[in-house]
Amino acid sequence: MRKVAILGVGHTPFSFLAEKTAVELLSEAAMEAVAHSNLKAVDIQAMFVGNVLGDFSEGQGMIQSYVADEIGAKNIPASRFEGACASGTMAIRDAFMWVASGFYDIVLAGGVDTVSKMGTSLATRTFAMFSDGHYEYPSGLTFPGAFGMLAHLYSAKYKVPLQKLKHQMALVSVQSHKYGQYNRLGQIHKAITIEDVLSSAMVTSPLQLYDCCPFSDGAAAIVLASEEIASKLMEKPVYIIGVGQASSGRFSSQKEYLPRLRAREISAKQAYDMAGIKPENIDLCELHDCFSIASIIAVESLGFAEFGHGGQLWETGEADRGGRIPINMSGGLKSKGHPIGATGASQVCDIVKQMRGLVEQERQVEDVRIGLTDTLGGDGIICNLVLQKGW
Amino acid sequence: MRKVAILGVGHTPFSFLAEKTAVELLSEAAMEAVAHSNLKAVDIQAMFVGNVLGDFSEGQGMIQSYVADEIGAKNIPASRFEGACASGTMAIRDAFMWVASGFYDIVLAGGVDTVSKMGTSLATRTFAMFSDGHYEYPSGLTFPGAFGMLAHLYSAKYKVPLQKLKHQMALVSVQSHKYGQYNRLGQIHKAITIEDVLSSAMVTSPLQLYDCCPFSDGAAAIVLASEEIASKLMEKPVYIIGVGQASSGRFSSQKEYLPRLRAREISAKQAYDMAGIKPENIDLCELHDCFSIASIIAVESLGFAEFGHGGQLWETGEADRGGRIPINMSGGLKSKGHPIGATGASQVCDIVKQMRGLVEQERQVEDVRIGLTDTLGGDGIICNLVLQKGW
Repeated sequence: MRKVAILGVGHTPFSFLAEKTAVELLSEAAMEAVAHSNLKAVDIQAMFVGNVLGDFSEGQGMIQSYVADEIGAKNIPASRFEGACASGTMAIRDAFMWVASGFYDIVLAGGVDTVSKMGTSLATRTFAMFSDGHYEYPSGLTFPGAFGMLAHLYSAKYKVPLQKLKHQMALVSVQSHKYGQYNRLGQIHKAITIEDVLSSAMVTSPLQLYDCCPFSDGAAAIVLASEEIASKLMEKPVYIIGVGQASSGRFSSQKEYLPRLRAREISAKQAYDMAGIKPENIDLCELHDCFSIASIIAVESLGFAEFGHGGQLWETGEADRGGRIPINMSGGLKSKGHPIGATGASQVCDIVKQMRGLVEQERQVEDVRIGLTDTLGGDGIICNLVLQKGW
Repeated sequence: MRKVAILGVGHTPFSFLAEKTAVELLSEAAMEAVAHSNLKAVDIQAMFVGNVLGDFSEGQGMIQSYVADEIGAKNIPASRFEGACASGTMAIRDAFMWVASGFYDIVLAGGVDTVSKMGTSLATRTFAMFSDGHYEYPSGLTFPGAFGMLAHLYSAKYKVPLQKLKHQMALVSVQSHKYGQYNRLGQIHKAITIEDVLSSAMVTSPLQLYDCCPFSDGAAAIVLASEEIASKLMEKPVYIIGVGQASSGRFSSQKEYLPRLRAREISAKQAYDMAGIKPENIDLCELHDCFSIASIIAVESLGFAEFGHGGQLWETGEADRGGRIPINMSGGLKSKGHPIGATGASQVCDIVKQMRGLVEQERQVEDVRIGLTDTLGGDGIICNLVLQKGW
């Protein structure tokens, strides 16, 4: 297998009610990624796109073909991937393989969704399609419901009093907004306090409004290339050194295991083993904070904290800039936004920019050599990880 | 790149208003494919699934994870592909690469849709999402509209009088039903006459009801493995010797080129070049006859007939069993049915069974050594080809 590099990255602003269509947004991100790779669109040999709700939000399926044509990468093979919120990283992992195998030299991967165009109530209904639609969703298990349940299970299993857990969860959101306010491509630019979180509207116990990420529109894309091509085009290619993907059955099938999520733990092991590294080697992590409790669960599965102690990373500042393992310096899904098909690609983009010293000064982490992208699909049913290495 | 074999295949009945869910249907096909491969579900390392309308027909996305869990292939990476009607072959082509690259040894690929559950009017609306949803569909360009237009363009460009073309198109449908009536897994079991076609209801000029495939529910799956594994498990593995995939922009972007479809012609060249064969080497072809005119256009793009002369294959019997290039001995989309995400996988399954002498005697072709699967997504925007070689 060949080494696979990330060349340019592209990222539209994330927003509520974007004026552009999904085809336009992804085309914009794709062209930025191509231009920053010192390439032209005709150099792209194939395209891999995560898009989850295009059919619902705009009545437009098969978006990848229209984007390929729109940017001038005429007639290339273009595939769409759906793994709920993990779709963007699913597309990237697949693109990685087509280059690693030697079949293609230069490909584009990314994702897009225009979720907010559906309106909040339809968005919640369509999101629920990525839980079990036959048994669990009809019983009331929306995503806020599932993650609220995880918080209660977490509190009970690890004997973390709910009040303490809620304080930790609030710290997660506060940190996301602290850095997200500086991300010019993010959706929300507003610092918040613990009191803001704890006094926000109750969504589903114990999750309050500021424990939940917003509905968002946006796109992100990256160009992947073989090492040989990359070394000719750019001084600082970033390499993908590990990928992981795993699945689970319906939420209730993990009842003995929850609040831990098997798919993430298996994906993490795959990615670490492929890269030959350990969690302590990671300098920066973008993880899937669809809800604040999800961050606490994630850092444990990813190996950054003992089970039951994830929240301490935010209490001690270990998850902060300058800490042991900075988390979500982009603002995360909570503040940057969560256009679901785009999210994984957005995370990878931000880590590449961090490695190149190209993000806003207020959220730039020094010397990021190894970065981890973590995306969760549905109520933990799919997980995709990407490990990146700079210089 | 390693050689990639197809081991077992699985195929549910195709039907109108299936009683089973998409998860149940694909699980059934997958288990059949696994059992016929002399494997167990735990041997499957990854899953690649084409599913287009699961979100609309059943409110169930991310079906691949639930199927993996359902059959006992716990926690494996499972990806969903969407390329409209080409989704099943898109999944197979991707699965092929993961095995060819050496990353996996044994994977499952397939597809499923339960289209008819939506009812005909909603199905037509959702199908239209796979044309350009912003400009072309709102102007009335549904799929019957697009293919009706292709028929008129064909007639004008090649100076085939419409009456003669309609007769050729009727012959296509008559042949599909002639063999489809014997396919026990097919949806329609009824021989029809030219008069039946020409007296059926007008859908959109010049397409009449019997020029159009039905709405269908069903699933199909195949197991792919490395040559080393295959040779241990089975006496007659079938090898994938070529794949092709290409895209186009919106229908109108090809206006200078129509009724020819660029994506198919490019895909065909890719697959033939990879396999090192020519159209005259093909013993059997399953092609994408969503409408009868589509078959005539297809045989020209695939190299079986000169442009403007495709219909003659049915007039002369060259497309018939015992002819130069037997077409759609399964009954094709027209008679076997078209559960869109399943269709490409179904075609591949049927060719494998033909190679092994396992189809109903009335439609069995002798000595099928090389077979071609052709699937078209949307109004020709995506095309996926798979070339298979037996013994």
